[in-house]
Amino acid sequence: MAFSERITRLKSSLIREILAAAQRPEVMSFAGGLPAQAMLPQVEWQAMPVSMGQYGMSEGEPELREAIAREARAIGVPCEASQVLIVSGSQQTLDLAAKLFIDPGTKVLVEAPTYLAALQPFQLFGADCLAVPQEADGPQLDALREQLAQKPAFGYLIPTFQNPSAVRYSEARRDAVAALFDEFGVPLIEDEPYRELVFDGGSATPIVSRLRKASWIYTGTVSKTLLPGLRVGFLIATPDLFPLLLRLKQAADLHTNRIGQWQALQWLGTQQYREHLAELRDFYRVRRDAMQSALLEHFAELADWQVPQGGLFFWLKLKQPLDTRTLLQPALAENVAFMPGEPFFVDPEQNHGYLRLNFSHVAPERLGEGLQRLTRVIRQAQQVQLAEQAVAAVAG
Amino acid sequence: MAFSERITRLKSSLIREILAAAQRPEVMSFAGGLPAQAMLPQVEWQAMPVSMGQYGMSEGEPELREAIAREARAIGVPCEASQVLIVSGSQQTLDLAAKLFIDPGTKVLVEAPTYLAALQPFQLFGADCLAVPQEADGPQLDALREQLAQKPAFGYLIPTFQNPSAVRYSEARRDAVAALFDEFGVPLIEDEPYRELVFDGGSATPIVSRLRKASWIYTGTVSKTLLPGLRVGFLIATPDLFPLLLRLKQAADLHTNRIGQWQALQWLGTQQYREHLAELRDFYRVRRDAMQSALLEHFAELADWQVPQGGLFFWLKLKQPLDTRTLLQPALAENVAFMPGEPFFVDPEQNHGYLRLNFSHVAPERLGEGLQRLTRVIRQAQQVQLAEQAVAAVAG
Repeated sequence: MAFSERITRLKSSLIREILAAAQRPEVMSFAGGLPAQAMLPQVEWQAMPVSMGQYGMSEGEPELREAIAREARAIGVPCEASQVLIVSGSQQTLDLAAKLFIDPGTKVLVEAPTYLAALQPFQLFGADCLAVPQEADGPQLDALREQLAQKPAFGYLIPTFQNPSAVRYSEARRDAVAALFDEFGVPLIEDEPYRELVFDGGSATPIVSRLRKASWIYTGTVSKTLLPGLRVGFLIATPDLFPLLLRLKQAADLHTNRIGQWQALQWLGTQQYREHLAELRDFYRVRRDAMQSALLEHFAELADWQVPQGGLFFWLKLKQPLDTRTLLQPALAENVAFMPGEPFFVDPEQNHGYLRLNFSHVAPERLGEGLQRLTRVIRQAQQVQLAEQAVAAVAG
Repeated sequence: MAFSERITRLKSSLIREILAAAQRPEVMSFAGGLPAQAMLPQVEWQAMPVSMGQYGMSEGEPELREAIAREARAIGVPCEASQVLIVSGSQQTLDLAAKLFIDPGTKVLVEAPTYLAALQPFQLFGADCLAVPQEADGPQLDALREQLAQKPAFGYLIPTFQNPSAVRYSEARRDAVAALFDEFGVPLIEDEPYRELVFDGGSATPIVSRLRKASWIYTGTVSKTLLPGLRVGFLIATPDLFPLLLRLKQAADLHTNRIGQWQALQWLGTQQYREHLAELRDFYRVRRDAMQSALLEHFAELADWQVPQGGLFFWLKLKQPLDTRTLLQPALAENVAFMPGEPFFVDPEQNHGYLRLNFSHVAPERLGEGLQRLTRVIRQAQQVQLAEQAVAAVAG
């Protein structure tokens, strides 16, 4: 039996394997990016028309496309409903974009770190990923210019509360990034699942709204604000890209499920949704603050980090770096799960020592216990590492 | 801007364009494969747990996988729940299979005719499709042997009430096909969306249940029996293929929407579902019979066909062939839509003169009027064709 050449590049998603391992109820998990169970809204289904059970259009439900275009225009994205494609969760945008742009060896620009489930389809299709280091307020501009000059097929950015780093690009950085994409004429894919999960105020218009020439795809989802189980996301694309993405969507799964689309439409743009988002922000802000306190207590000597102003994650850098993937089994043995940093990098071996910790899922009163277990595992590994280095030094 | 090489092969789906054109309420449509609106069951949502809104497993809901494995074993497919992957409609099975097997130039075996929305992803990924002519009781065996000898990466068959030809493979043909796939060690993808839509009794176990050595993927859906809008299909794969398909599913859209999965689980294996299926068969049998009567009245001189024993389509062969794609615009001008036969063939130019007519959607009392309009369009085109041929003969 002969598989396609791309199967040699098919990696499993470490995060989904960790999530599976973390399903034992005794495991305290900082690994996932799951919304808090308590914040899943009660939704009504009674009023859904039977016709939603019929086949639908590949583009998505017309009213939902209108609603998404309206919301997008309100945050500064210039678009019409005809540019909106409803997708089966915004992960599908990445699959469609990979099909649209990537052959084996195609250059693709990403942040370092970047979303690991974006690297998965990009690398599956054979992308040669060019990484641009992330700073506290956005990508390093010299590196961005250098990589754009290599003419990647597109750049993939998550400018608002990035998963995993929680970085939010500043206004100045957004303008500079847009100017560079325009200068080099490189299409931009902007991924914004966390825009509404903002805890300390402030907002900046998306980068696509600052572009003057470059083509773009803007993608979002209701997974972080409503219900991920609906699998309803969207993309908005410039008219040169839209018809191709639509055909790729047809070939992939005909259309997105209509019951989830109908449910999303009941919420978008309503007072009820605005109230739900406000509650969500309040709830997660409390959890973020509790996590920050617990981290100060347990991790101050071990790691450095920025306090995330939105999103769902803390991104820690160990003061004494080691391959955090090696911590995973000992941590699970202590019934605590976390996400190693290496898979978020194009070159994992050059980027040891990062941990991604989710704060939305663990109840605040249990944080201390969970983080303590994690510090035990880290300290032990670091002692082993130091001992090995000492032995190596003596032997050398 | 540079697109991937595969985009040069990206065709639009003619059927979805026809469906869009046929949405005008005055158009009588024989084009689609839509379940009758009247037969969409009333479904209940009240009891759905809130947890279905949370992220789920890429494999699908464990209970649904169990239920599907049980149903599959009952029709003769030897499998465990661990081999079941829930997909976003069975169209996604074709996307995943294309990713798994197809590089540019990879040989893939298909029936002639075959399902046009399978050709779309296969050809997008660069398949070189080897066609095996369909006979009244299955594929022509000499041709099948000849094509299998070319070592295609897989064969794709729809042995039960095929879309578009309505052919159901006989028992003997199923055995012979299985033996040939085993002999050449070619993986089989067996697609069975129409198995339950059987009007005149009889059933045969799937071909995968007759294989002894070859790897296989068996795929089905609830779209034809419950609600297509749920976008819930499944695949069952041999253990050598399953883990690869699972990872491809993760990269494509993380997991299938859970609300549709939950709804499907409320039906599968229940008395209520068996009753619904019985009603569905009765309803469609009446429509099939009405279509047969109307066709005998209007098409007896124009075309030949077999009476379909299941599924949703009549497959007509014009006695005086012409490119049926050229009939589409005149037909739409007469407010009647149908599906031309050419797109169902790997080599459309060699296969003129077929029409696919759906009988599930148009109300029986309107059939006569719709078919009459269609015959007018066909006769007119045939007269033009004869006149042109006469002119050409004189000129020659």
